[in-house]
Amino acid sequence: MATSLTQTIAGSAARGQTEAVLASWNDGPAKRSVLDFVRRVTTTGSPEFVKPEERIAVFDNDGTLWSEQPVVFQAAFVIDRLKALAPQHPEWKKNPVIQAALAGDIGAVAAGGQRALGELVMVTHAGMTTEEFTKIVEDWIASARHPRFNRLYTDLVFQPMLELLGYLRANGFKTFVVSGGGIEFMRVWVEKIYGIPPEQVIGSSIVTKFEMLAGVPVLTRLAQMNFVDDHAGKPVGIHSHIGRRPIAAFGNSDGDLQMLQWTTENSGARFALLVHHTDGDREYAYEVSALGKLDAALTEAKAKGWTVVDMKRDWNRIYPFEAK
Amino acid sequence: MATSLTQTIAGSAARGQTEAVLASWNDGPAKRSVLDFVRRVTTTGSPEFVKPEERIAVFDNDGTLWSEQPVVFQAAFVIDRLKALAPQHPEWKKNPVIQAALAGDIGAVAAGGQRALGELVMVTHAGMTTEEFTKIVEDWIASARHPRFNRLYTDLVFQPMLELLGYLRANGFKTFVVSGGGIEFMRVWVEKIYGIPPEQVIGSSIVTKFEMLAGVPVLTRLAQMNFVDDHAGKPVGIHSHIGRRPIAAFGNSDGDLQMLQWTTENSGARFALLVHHTDGDREYAYEVSALGKLDAALTEAKAKGWTVVDMKRDWNRIYPFEAK
Repeated sequence: MATSLTQTIAGSAARGQTEAVLASWNDGPAKRSVLDFVRRVTTTGSPEFVKPEERIAVFDNDGTLWSEQPVVFQAAFVIDRLKALAPQHPEWKKNPVIQAALAGDIGAVAAGGQRALGELVMVTHAGMTTEEFTKIVEDWIASARHPRFNRLYTDLVFQPMLELLGYLRANGFKTFVVSGGGIEFMRVWVEKIYGIPPEQVIGSSIVTKFEMLAGVPVLTRLAQMNFVDDHAGKPVGIHSHIGRRPIAAFGNSDGDLQMLQWTTENSGARFALLVHHTDGDREYAYEVSALGKLDAALTEAKAKGWTVVDMKRDWNRIYPFEAK
Repeated sequence: MATSLTQTIAGSAARGQTEAVLASWNDGPAKRSVLDFVRRVTTTGSPEFVKPEERIAVFDNDGTLWSEQPVVFQAAFVIDRLKALAPQHPEWKKNPVIQAALAGDIGAVAAGGQRALGELVMVTHAGMTTEEFTKIVEDWIASARHPRFNRLYTDLVFQPMLELLGYLRANGFKTFVVSGGGIEFMRVWVEKIYGIPPEQVIGSSIVTKFEMLAGVPVLTRLAQMNFVDDHAGKPVGIHSHIGRRPIAAFGNSDGDLQMLQWTTENSGARFALLVHHTDGDREYAYEVSALGKLDAALTEAKAKGWTVVDMKRDWNRIYPFEAK
């Protein structure tokens, strides 16, 4: 189905948008595929029209909506928490996983697998009420800075994806974050930086327990995993939280593959997009990270005609703080 | 803070409502408490004003939004499924729990506790994909009838609560169902009868697993409990799905007590309401059911000044099918 980009933008303008749509996206197949999809599902009377309540779009977070290098945001939080708590825990000196993390040796931690990661999460994320944890995260993000750009981590969001979130919402979509990151960790800042409310955030979680402390009802965070929202967990998390299948999904790694498969397997117009990190000058260029690979997802994208964003080619601006 | 009912209705009318607000509610303390609360949290500049995105209201389902007698809706589904599946399961003849359920002996099933209930749920709710389960539920609710009223179960909703849901939404609230019932069971019909979308339904769940069946991604329902959304589970489910504390909660039994405690414990205007089933002529009159008691919740309501609806006194109409 051929679409004129000019016509699509004119259509959007008619709906009240005066600024250029997706201004940080260069004209090309990636941008055109987004505009074409949105036009098809929002055109009344079109055979591919989708009712507004079914316009569900799901976004991975790390590497898709913002940078995940040199370490993913939550890993930076874990390391800083370990440093802050270490003086109270002399027994940690005998713990090789904690010592590796304190030394910033992410490779050694990753080599320990889920068990090592789980241990670090538990000593930094459990043992307090949900409100206390929120306060700890709020305090940290107000000052923690990215080592390369020397900016708050929350400045490292991708301008083109902010525009995409806004564009989809302006077209009746409900946008969700679906991340392997901690659900309660993310909810502290997701609304502020993406305009996505906490009830539209899906993530990994530890068990919480309702109890009365001195007559006050609290939820206490226990040192026990509840759910891992990554790989095959993402469709499970989506189904549990949303209860209907998305029609559009956005990711950047093999951890997002099952989410993209789940979203696109159905009749009707469906959209899947992978962000490919190809710009080492403005951001980072990589296909393998401590978090996982991209090869299975890229292969499937090619076979199924999913959209692949080449950041260097497709985005004329990466971060909001860059000059236009 | 004294409020004139006439003023409040006038205020609502000014916001575009032409019909009388909460028409099926008799004038009295219950109705006045609802109107007063909504006025306080929606009046711009008021010290108790709450931003629209924080106007979260949570509703128990069985006994709060619709009738739960003589058996709760999902129990009727379980019994009908057992009857339909029994011919394929001759081994069930030796199973006393299943035989009790087939004979409609809810007391005997309840006496078996969580274990007996769990067994019945697993043989009727697991072992199929999520889409297959949805189809089974859809087919059943299209024909299953309530034994006393000889109507579809979905007709047995409380008209005053439908009006309340609409009134809250017209005032910027986001309404959620928070029920001990199965989340996937409820999502099939909740949107149609209450106008609440699936992503705003919280309930009990079994484990689902993502897998590829003949190249098609599916979620398979496993015979394993995932989460029980009742009693102390309700605040946990609310926190997991919504990620912020409600400002209003509505229930009818001790299973809702912790949800009401969690909602009302905080600064600012908060609202809690219990539906008390006092009308045996038009509905049912009871304080204890197979599902649980009401005494702890009623005692706390009295101590804390929560609103208690006396159905006989406060509601001039119970079901939508009654003449006005």
